[in-house]
Amino acid sequence: MTESALSIPKGFKAAACSSGIKKSGKLDLALICADKPVECAGVFTTNKVVAAPVKITESRVRQGLCQAILVNSGNANACTGEQGLLNARRCGDLVAESLDIAPQLVAVSSTGVIGAPLPMHCFEGHVSDLCRMLSQDQFEGVARAMMTTDAFPKMSGRCISFDGSEVRLFGMAKGAGMIHPDMATMLAFILTDAVLADGLLEDALRQAVNSSFNRITVDRDTSTNDMALLLASGEAGNPEIVAESPELGLFTAALNDVMLDLAKMIARDGEGATKLVRVEVKGAASEADALVAARSVATSQLVKTAFFGEDANWGRIIAAVGYSGADVDPDTVSIMFDDIMMVSNGLGLGADQETKASEILKKPEFTVTINLALGEGSAYYYTSDLSYDYVRINAAYRT
Amino acid sequence: MTESALSIPKGFKAAACSSGIKKSGKLDLALICADKPVECAGVFTTNKVVAAPVKITESRVRQGLCQAILVNSGNANACTGEQGLLNARRCGDLVAESLDIAPQLVAVSSTGVIGAPLPMHCFEGHVSDLCRMLSQDQFEGVARAMMTTDAFPKMSGRCISFDGSEVRLFGMAKGAGMIHPDMATMLAFILTDAVLADGLLEDALRQAVNSSFNRITVDRDTSTNDMALLLASGEAGNPEIVAESPELGLFTAALNDVMLDLAKMIARDGEGATKLVRVEVKGAASEADALVAARSVATSQLVKTAFFGEDANWGRIIAAVGYSGADVDPDTVSIMFDDIMMVSNGLGLGADQETKASEILKKPEFTVTINLALGEGSAYYYTSDLSYDYVRINAAYRT
Repeated sequence: MTESALSIPKGFKAAACSSGIKKSGKLDLALICADKPVECAGVFTTNKVVAAPVKITESRVRQGLCQAILVNSGNANACTGEQGLLNARRCGDLVAESLDIAPQLVAVSSTGVIGAPLPMHCFEGHVSDLCRMLSQDQFEGVARAMMTTDAFPKMSGRCISFDGSEVRLFGMAKGAGMIHPDMATMLAFILTDAVLADGLLEDALRQAVNSSFNRITVDRDTSTNDMALLLASGEAGNPEIVAESPELGLFTAALNDVMLDLAKMIARDGEGATKLVRVEVKGAASEADALVAARSVATSQLVKTAFFGEDANWGRIIAAVGYSGADVDPDTVSIMFDDIMMVSNGLGLGADQETKASEILKKPEFTVTINLALGEGSAYYYTSDLSYDYVRINAAYRT
Repeated sequence: MTESALSIPKGFKAAACSSGIKKSGKLDLALICADKPVECAGVFTTNKVVAAPVKITESRVRQGLCQAILVNSGNANACTGEQGLLNARRCGDLVAESLDIAPQLVAVSSTGVIGAPLPMHCFEGHVSDLCRMLSQDQFEGVARAMMTTDAFPKMSGRCISFDGSEVRLFGMAKGAGMIHPDMATMLAFILTDAVLADGLLEDALRQAVNSSFNRITVDRDTSTNDMALLLASGEAGNPEIVAESPELGLFTAALNDVMLDLAKMIARDGEGATKLVRVEVKGAASEADALVAARSVATSQLVKTAFFGEDANWGRIIAAVGYSGADVDPDTVSIMFDDIMMVSNGLGLGADQETKASEILKKPEFTVTINLALGEGSAYYYTSDLSYDYVRINAAYRT
């Protein structure tokens, strides 16, 4: 989906530039800006090693208002000590000074190499330019400036209407390594022009994170810099969306859709990935069991390399279910690749089915369904395959 | 270490052959046999999907006596249903008939592909030959016949003396995939001729498993077929080793050594591995914390690919500590590669140290020490790097 196909929520502008942080000269610094202070909510990394910009932005977002988001790639400003905090604050101050707004209204975020000091001259030299360049057609530039090992920019949007008014949602995210739930490693910024009653934004964001960014895995590594921010300008002019209303249902469904789109893009663009696989567990004794079983399969290195090898190696799948911790009766397990039944009552169905399944595995996107036949619990995960390129990208990341 | 350098405990013989289970014609079937029923103890997979031979052997070993161990590679006899159990029992019966002993005294174990029926004609045609071939110089053949993706056979031995008598320990193990603690995926058979008081064997084995096979990880996948068996013939003629004696201390230390040797060989021979890395966490708030932190680093795909790339990327190490769940104060963490300090008080020590550390990373074996400076807890893990060959081996395993 290109930016042109998406409509940008009213009340926001953006700009992006290459500031020199990335030696490649690619876009690496961007600014998203609301016309005035707007409501915001955020979800942040659960890693105990928290990058400086996350610390600063988390405390600012907790106030509930935000006007600008500065994001850079190429340097994570993580494990950088007191100087890292000073640098992150200085980045925000540069934006605040240029826009003549309070520093508390500026969120800062960084992604890239851990442990290197932020090259402040890149920010000193370019932030004021960014503030002058702000426009409504630079959002794809932002999505590009967030990229590290991402192969493509990640954007998604939805437009919903009710009572004669249109409400827009637009999100941008970056992957592509250290992807694992709670949180998946990434930055994501979602904008909307919806008018919502106080206090609904945070719940809507947390719920959507749980069924999107928390359901993808590339490598089980949770980063130090994860951050998802949701900003609502209230410029759509819709009747205020209130709690427990049908309109809130529409809004949260659209938010879920946008964030699941982004999450799937992140998984599909997992480092070195050639396939996007939905791992679905049904019939678990509980939803919690379904989740751990699905997670176990989705994160198994052996399963992921078999996907890369297009090998319908269901033994590895059932083994991963077996060690997941979920209740399992091996004799009731069935496994399907899309609509091809591979295993029934714990037993393989033979060479014919394997041949059919290997056709499924050649597809860039398919679903593995595991039915435990013990109860009603179900859950899904999105994962990528594990390829030579994953190793190549990560063995050489800093060189 | 070759077999010739190791002395085989008294009272055991072995034989190995190629029975045709492996299409390559390599050794794939072996028998270890004691001259009479001997004391035994076992530790088995924690996977809920348990292979047929594990089910049968676990119940037999629980009786405390064993005389023969039949092991095959090339087929795991896992997820094979009722027929798999019948086949595993039939394998044991073939040994029992040829040796004229009770079937209850025969342990059976299998490793290889999951979900394929055991090719019984290979057993019917070769078990009686094995029983005739038994000798004291065939143990290396056993270690070879256990191999699946292993690059080399794994054996280790110790000889300890006290009160004028010599006691021997000798172990064989196989890796090399689905390696992760509780249990690490593998088969291991350890033989000793020590005379021990009743009931000591099981504790000694469990303790040694915890500090050896449970401290290695290749890919976090726990197999359906893990099994470690310890057999004691009592032929050494030593004064009986009793509980809480110095002699028991010597014996368990030697057992730990043998099993840690084997565990390190398994990790070094992890699929595609080019390096063996000891991950040591010190100064944790508790031993449990040290263990989860060490495990988190040792299992991080990003850390393991950085090892392969010989990149001293300490940011990934500190991130893996941060999401491990252990208590961490990022500002007190220090990290060393062998004797090169890379990180102090959470901050990188600069390019000079990185250059020195990258020399360490070129070595085939090194230690990463992470000091959390919060308490007295310490723990270690052995891990391998994640290479292109891991992907190659596992993408094409069944083809």
